[in-house]
Amino acid sequence: MTDVPVNHPRYESLRLREAIVAGVNAGVTSQHGLIAHGRGEAYDYLLGEQTHTFARAAIAAAAHLLSKARHPVISVNGNVAALVAENLVRLSETLGAPLEVNIFHTSKTREEAIRNCLLAHGANDVLMPSTEAELAFIESNRRFVHPQGIFKSDAIFVPLEDGDRCQALRKMGKAVVTVDLNPMSRTSRTASITIVDNVVRALPLLIDALEGAAVRGGDQAPANFDNMLNLAAAEAAIRANHV
Amino acid sequence: MTDVPVNHPRYESLRLREAIVAGVNAGVTSQHGLIAHGRGEAYDYLLGEQTHTFARAAIAAAAHLLSKARHPVISVNGNVAALVAENLVRLSETLGAPLEVNIFHTSKTREEAIRNCLLAHGANDVLMPSTEAELAFIESNRRFVHPQGIFKSDAIFVPLEDGDRCQALRKMGKAVVTVDLNPMSRTSRTASITIVDNVVRALPLLIDALEGAAVRGGDQAPANFDNMLNLAAAEAAIRANHV
Repeated sequence: MTDVPVNHPRYESLRLREAIVAGVNAGVTSQHGLIAHGRGEAYDYLLGEQTHTFARAAIAAAAHLLSKARHPVISVNGNVAALVAENLVRLSETLGAPLEVNIFHTSKTREEAIRNCLLAHGANDVLMPSTEAELAFIESNRRFVHPQGIFKSDAIFVPLEDGDRCQALRKMGKAVVTVDLNPMSRTSRTASITIVDNVVRALPLLIDALEGAAVRGGDQAPANFDNMLNLAAAEAAIRANHV
Repeated sequence: MTDVPVNHPRYESLRLREAIVAGVNAGVTSQHGLIAHGRGEAYDYLLGEQTHTFARAAIAAAAHLLSKARHPVISVNGNVAALVAENLVRLSETLGAPLEVNIFHTSKTREEAIRNCLLAHGANDVLMPSTEAELAFIESNRRFVHPQGIFKSDAIFVPLEDGDRCQALRKMGKAVVTVDLNPMSRTSRTASITIVDNVVRALPLLIDALEGAAVRGGDQAPANFDNMLNLAAAEAAIRANHV
């Protein structure tokens, strides 16, 4: 995928940067998605590009929440498809939750490209936005969802989400788990559980946590997870000079 | 240029985001430039999106350095062309310094698009990369420069620069003034003077400072400007929780 030598000090960051540009060239990711990726790079840099304790706590809480949901759904946009398609498919299988395409800057062509990307990475089925079901509390085209997917869900995993939609899903009474490198974003502050980490690092850990929960019977609730306190810890890590 | 209402709390940030996406659509800015813009957004957010004292000190030092140079040159890439073309032309006039196109991801088409963008914003002349002159210490196509421009320059203003090129210019003995929102970047740490600020805010201030210096006779050297100390102040502002 990349010409960057593996011993380059910025190898992982440059590899992801090339993956997201390849996503644009493949019609999967939007140009605005590139800007969002750049913001993520900066926050991750300030976090020392590592998974912190607060992220592990959020992942444990998310695994518990998602494994207890009756109708969990995984919402997929252009950035996560470009970065972690294979692990989204693994998460879908582990959790028994459908994948549903939902993007901010609507484009039928791009929705199809994301679907094809997931299918190429092993997905059996991918739900698509439909006019048969609409979310309340949201104006944009993102309100169109699949009746058997996001519409019916009680818990939704939406990595790299936008603030308006996160808020709409919460107002509809759905539990929202997000992954966001900016602990100060509206999405981070609105979600039920925010994993402040790079989605590339967090997703395998979430899958491991779900597999572990399945082995143990999935009944250990993480004690007293508080999203706002957890976000405060994440912001402190960004602001502190010791990462 | 934008559909975002002026009273939107994120108006300025969204306006710049649209300007940079428009730059890509106009063939001026690269896709990697969008990622770089996103990184800048995140650092600017942490800086409270304001011009700090350390940036004003760097601007004063930069105005002095550039006004004293025998052959100052302004290097223009796709991001600054998309964001501040008009003020680059004003700076060129104020300073009596040529504009020269120099981009990281080489493309003759994009070089021409940047040139046309500057001409459309009032530039009389724009120097282009040539094979008649090469910078030392640099492998990429960025080494090709204009013999009467960057090659001959003793001081170069290169906002939003990459680390390798900044280092090469310094090794050739040229003074480098850059604008970079990340005080920890290689560019920031290699330049003679780094203005840690949004280029959209910094450029008018630099022009004002040059005009002020011209009125006063341009002989007041800012006392004891130390780039590394100034960068440390900028990093402290990003890390501190009081912006």
